[in-house]
This record gives sequence, structure tokens and C-alpha cells, in this order.
Amino acid sequence: MISRLPICLLALGAAAAWAAEPLRGTGDLGLVIERARGSVQVIETSTDTALGTVEGLGDLSHASAVFSRDQRFAYVFGRDGGLSKVDLLTRTLTARVVQAGNSIGGAISQDGRLVAVSNYEPGGVRVFDAATLAQVADIPAAYGEGPDAGKLSKVIGLVDAPGQRFVFSLWDAGEIWVADLSDPTRPQVRRFKDIGRQPYDALITPDGRYYIAGLFGEDGLALLDLWDLDAGVRRILPSYGQGGNKLPVYKMPHLDGWAIAGDRAFVPAVGAHQVLVIDTRTWAEVGRIEVLGQPVFVRVRPDGRQVWVNFALPDNGQVQVIDTKDLRIVQTLNPGPGVLHLEFEPKGGAVWVSVRDADRVEVYDTATFARTATVPADKPSGIFLTDRAGRIGL
Amino acid sequence: MISRLPICLLALGAAAAWAAEPLRGTGDLGLVIERARGSVQVIETSTDTALGTVEGLGDLSHASAVFSRDQRFAYVFGRDGGLSKVDLLTRTLTARVVQAGNSIGGAISQDGRLVAVSNYEPGGVRVFDAATLAQVADIPAAYGEGPDAGKLSKVIGLVDAPGQRFVFSLWDAGEIWVADLSDPTRPQVRRFKDIGRQPYDALITPDGRYYIAGLFGEDGLALLDLWDLDAGVRRILPSYGQGGNKLPVYKMPHLDGWAIAGDRAFVPAVGAHQVLVIDTRTWAEVGRIEVLGQPVFVRVRPDGRQVWVNFALPDNGQVQVIDTKDLRIVQTLNPGPGVLHLEFEPKGGAVWVSVRDADRVEVYDTATFARTATVPADKPSGIFLTDRAGRIGL
Repeated sequence: MISRLPICLLALGAAAAWAAEPLRGTGDLGLVIERARGSVQVIETSTDTALGTVEGLGDLSHASAVFSRDQRFAYVFGRDGGLSKVDLLTRTLTARVVQAGNSIGGAISQDGRLVAVSNYEPGGVRVFDAATLAQVADIPAAYGEGPDAGKLSKVIGLVDAPGQRFVFSLWDAGEIWVADLSDPTRPQVRRFKDIGRQPYDALITPDGRYYIAGLFGEDGLALLDLWDLDAGVRRILPSYGQGGNKLPVYKMPHLDGWAIAGDRAFVPAVGAHQVLVIDTRTWAEVGRIEVLGQPVFVRVRPDGRQVWVNFALPDNGQVQVIDTKDLRIVQTLNPGPGVLHLEFEPKGGAVWVSVRDADRVEVYDTATFARTATVPADKPSGIFLTDRAGRIGL
Repeated sequence: MISRLPICLLALGAAAAWAAEPLRGTGDLGLVIERARGSVQVIETSTDTALGTVEGLGDLSHASAVFSRDQRFAYVFGRDGGLSKVDLLTRTLTARVVQAGNSIGGAISQDGRLVAVSNYEPGGVRVFDAATLAQVADIPAAYGEGPDAGKLSKVIGLVDAPGQRFVFSLWDAGEIWVADLSDPTRPQVRRFKDIGRQPYDALITPDGRYYIAGLFGEDGLALLDLWDLDAGVRRILPSYGQGGNKLPVYKMPHLDGWAIAGDRAFVPAVGAHQVLVIDTRTWAEVGRIEVLGQPVFVRVRPDGRQVWVNFALPDNGQVQVIDTKDLRIVQTLNPGPGVLHLEFEPKGGAVWVSVRDADRVEVYDTATFARTATVPADKPSGIFLTDRAGRIGL
């Protein structure tokens, strides 16, 4: 028996070492969408390294993610209707459902118990238990009257809102719906009709008060004050849009590309090389800043002092930084070909930048503009940091 | 050998189970100061339970905490000058230094690498490596000229600010200092003199732009715009204060008891049963709300729609909730004797309330005002949730 003891002890030690995943916090984690491979890379922002890749997430050519309230899990929404739950600590795919034919995004409820997905096909929103991904509710985006009754609209612009609600827009119907999921088995839906033609994207302000939808079919945006639903939807920035020129939808600005900083919003112009400055008390335009290309994302540093801007082709290798106090450009950077997304660390000292066509993600110091790290990634697009777990609408 | 195998396997299994601390995220953690025992209780907000207690933190009769950027560690600042690093995942005291004779609070730098402590004795700020608690800098709060030169002032109101800075006030000197710790071995300090008599507390706005110090020795507050240091310190709310009546310092409102929500601040009145409403664009008072007692903490729900207020004796068993849209009280609660602190979960759906003299912490649903959980605690005072890790000034 003595000769078995050392073997047993060795085996015990090995088992203990293998079983004990090194403990770490989750506040400094994030994920990078690897859009061509259908995988996500888990990164950490304390020493700027990649921790591992999780594969098998389907079609991530257009994808986004939200985080569980404890920041351990990411819910990744893929274009193919896939909803994937990823464990950031073990870098494994915990659960996955292909819940629709074609999907454009999702959100997590205020209390973290529900994950909602906005679908094109079939048009509507489906709601899932965040722990198990079991479906708990289905909200078909049915609209129309008479012979048109019961048609289903594509759903876009899904966000979470305070009060255990989800807010979203119907592209085909021109409507905004507010769904209260306090009882997940019985969603209470309030419908706002005739809000404008073809809402194509939307955002919610960081305080969770204003829902703003961009319109493809006409100029201006639709605004809903969630503190005053009875006031209905109103049109703001009436000249924001394409004017006479019809652009393809994909060239319309992402509304999550808006940067809300205090009482100002910084907004990509439509079809112009400008960033608009909007007063969020009046929703009137109060200025324009000339930039080097057509802005795609305009993202604000958490302290509100800078906005960083990336661009559409042919300028998608560059980034510009605007000082919000002086309303002028203070830096132009050249990270590399295909800058698809920018994400700030929560206190704003650094920003992560995806450079798709150079297969890397770069980290910049926002004070000095020095590039402080490079992390290899396969065709990276969206970057999402876990601090979003505590933020309304993200 | 066959008969030893099952024993070996059992032992392997046991070792693996013991060695493998269950993995969890850190986004839903927090700690409760147990002020009489010198301990902290680690709690989680997903199912509202206590995970364990960490003892040996010295004198916590006045204590506060900040979090590491990954949310794994808390740095607890105690009245006795103790600086304790607590591992929230293992519930152990990782490191502790008694770094001064008497201390009132601390902060963590923007990049999370430095922890600063504000000291009464000796007067000044000491800066420590966040990983090891090794001291890296000492900033004596020396003031005065001629025969008074070199006296050390008590330091209060220490906060972190963007740009790797710390800002703090000197009680004896009537000064505000801004220290840049970009090179931790050579702090760059800018001193603002004659800012007002006896600053006793301070805050920084959530965007990290405005530093505001309350004055004990005269009426009004001192404001410094960190985006425009050359403009110097100016006096705001000139009538805010004690007027002719001299109150003890401990009866002056905590400035971290202010609630900044968008373009308004909700502020405890001095020596009156009122909450003041301040316009943060002009820093002028724009309203007052009558409450049931002398407010201590006025804390805003993350979406800005409510502020919750606790009170000084003899009303410290009650809490009131103000609706910020209608500027009226919508609820009065009676959690129990000795409500010392209130802390919202990051999306605002729930709030944690310490009830010191009933040895418990309570959780309330902020929509329904129902008490949803009770967690036993020993003489609980401050409650701090890990979401603070990603917030400037917290």
C-alpha cells in the first residue's frame, strides 16, 4: 500500500490543480466578436491580454452582446437568430439556442433574469430565462388592420429600460412598443403607432429616460419620453436625414453610435462628413464639427471630455478625437484597415479599437493617444466590456 | 491495488471539490461595514445573501471602501488609519497596513494601480500600490507662511479624478489641492488657497468634472472645475450653511450625501428639514422639498427618477422617497432603528438599507417599495457594491 501512496498523492495534487480554475474578478473582462470565424475572444483589460476563444457561435457577421448582472456570462446575439450564453470565466459555451431565422440584436432586463431578442424572421421579440435560455414569452410584432391585420414586422432597436421593460421599434409598421415584463408570462405591451416611416435603429439615453428611433423613410427622429408615455412620440431634429438622396439602409448611422454626454449628444451626420452637436434639453442642433469622413460610431469617453469617431469606407482606417469642451479635433489616429468599433474602459483612461483587416485589437491611452497594447484577433468587429452589466440600455 | 483504487478516487474527488472554490462573477458583490466588530460582511445581490465575514479590520466606526478595477478586492479605510485589502472571492484579509494615526477616507486611481488615503494625523495624503499596499508616495498637507510654515493640515474630501489625479481639501488651511499621480514617485501638486474656511467634506460629480467642498467656517460651497483649473475656485450657493447658528461638524451634511442626477442636484439642507434642488448648470437653488427630519444622505436612483433620503436623530428609523419629476414625496418607509446608509444596485431596481440598531440590512424594490430581503449584520453602517469599481469618484 505504501507504494501506492505517492501515486495517489500525485494524482490528488494534479486533480486539485486541474479542478481549481484560478480565481479572478470579472470587472475587467470583455469580449471581441470574431465575425468571420463565428467565435468570440475573451480579453482582460488589466494587463491587456486575451484569455481564450469560444467557438461555435454561428453567424456573427452582425452581432452584439450583453452581460449577466454578475458579469460572469455574456449573451451573444447573432444574425442567424442564434442566442449564445458564454461563460467568461471558463471560456465555454454554456448554452445556445437558434431562436429565430434572422435576428438583429437583444437586451437583458433590469433585474438580469430575462434576455430578449429582436427578430426579423418571424418578426417580433422573444424572451428567454437568462439562466437556462428557456423561452418564457413571445411577442409577435403583429400590425395592420383589415386585410393587412396580423402581418408581422421586422423588429429593430430593442433596449432594456427601467421598470423591467423592453422598448423596441417595428420597421414595417412604423411603431414603437413598450413591453413591461414584470410578469414574464404576461407581457404588458403599449403600442405607439404612426411614429414615422421605417425606424431602422434606436437608442435609449444612459439614464433610461428617452428612447430615440432613427427613420429611414423620412427625415427626423422619433422620441419617446419613458417618464411620460401619455405624451406619446414626437419628432425631433426634423432635418436629420437624407433629404432628397436615398442612401442604402446600411449607410444610415447606427444610433448606438450616438454619444450622450450630460446635456449634449454627439451624432453622426447622414451622408456628410460631420458630427452634429445636439442640446439634449431641447433636442435642437447647436453645432457641427467637420471630420475627415462619414462617421459611423461617435462614442463618448466616460467623463464626457472626448468623443472618438470612426468612419465608413474609404476612411475606415482612421479615427478622430474631438474635445467636447472646445468642440475641436485634437487628434487623428491611423490604427489600421477596417476600424469597426471602439469601446472605452469604464473610467475612460483607455479605449479598445478593433482593426478588422489587420486581425488585431489595439488599446490606446486616451490622455496621451499612445498605443499601449495590441491583441491578435481574427477579423474583430464589436468589442464589449463587462462594465456594461451595470448600465441601463447596454 | 484494486482495493486501494476506490479510496484513491474518493480522495481525489474530495480534494478536487475542496480545492476548487466555486467560480462566480464579481459584478453582483458588495460589502457591509460592521462598525462595532471591526469586520466587513461580503454580500451578493443576485439572491440577496451573505457570503461570509472578514474580521480584523480595526476601528471601523467611520469607514469607507473602494474597489479594485476587476472588482475582486475591496480597500477599506478605517478611522484608526488602517488600510485593509479584502479579497471578496475568498473572504480573506489579503493585506493590511496601519498607515497613519487617524484617517477619514480614501480613493483609488483611474487606472486602479494606486490607492490614496486622506489622513488627519499626520495631516496629508499617502499613496499605496494597490497590489501590495507598499507605500509609493507621501504628500504632507503642509501650509502656512513665516512662523506658521510647515504646519500640517487635516485632509478631507479625497476623491479620484480623470487623468490619474486625486483631489482633496485641507481643513486647517482652507485649501484644495489637485495631485497628478501619472508618475507615482513624483506627484505633481497644484494648490488652490483661500477657498473658504474649514472645508469639512467634498464630492466630485459623476462625470469627474466638478469638485465641490462644503465649508464649516462660513456659508456657501467651494467649486473647482477640473476642466478649467486656471479659473480657480469659486463660491456657489452663498447662503448654504448654518447662517448664524453654529452646529457641531458631525451635524453638517455629508457631501457624498448629495445626489447628482443629470442637470440637477438634490442636497440636504443644513439644520432644516428640507432637501434642496440645485440646477447644476448655474449652481443656483431652484426648489426645496419638505421632509420629515434633518436629511443625512440624499441618494439618487441610477436612472435619476427617485431620490431616497435618510435622517439624523430622532428620525433615523425612517426613509423617504422623492419623485424627481414631480418633486414630491411618494413614499415613507420605516426600516427600523438606525438607518445609516442606502446603496442602489447598479440598474436601480433595488436598494440596500442598513438598519444598525436592529442588526440587519434590508433590500427594497424601488418600484413597489416592498421589502424583498433581510440579511443579518452586526451593527451595519456603510454598504458598498462592486459596481462602484467602474465609476469615477467612487
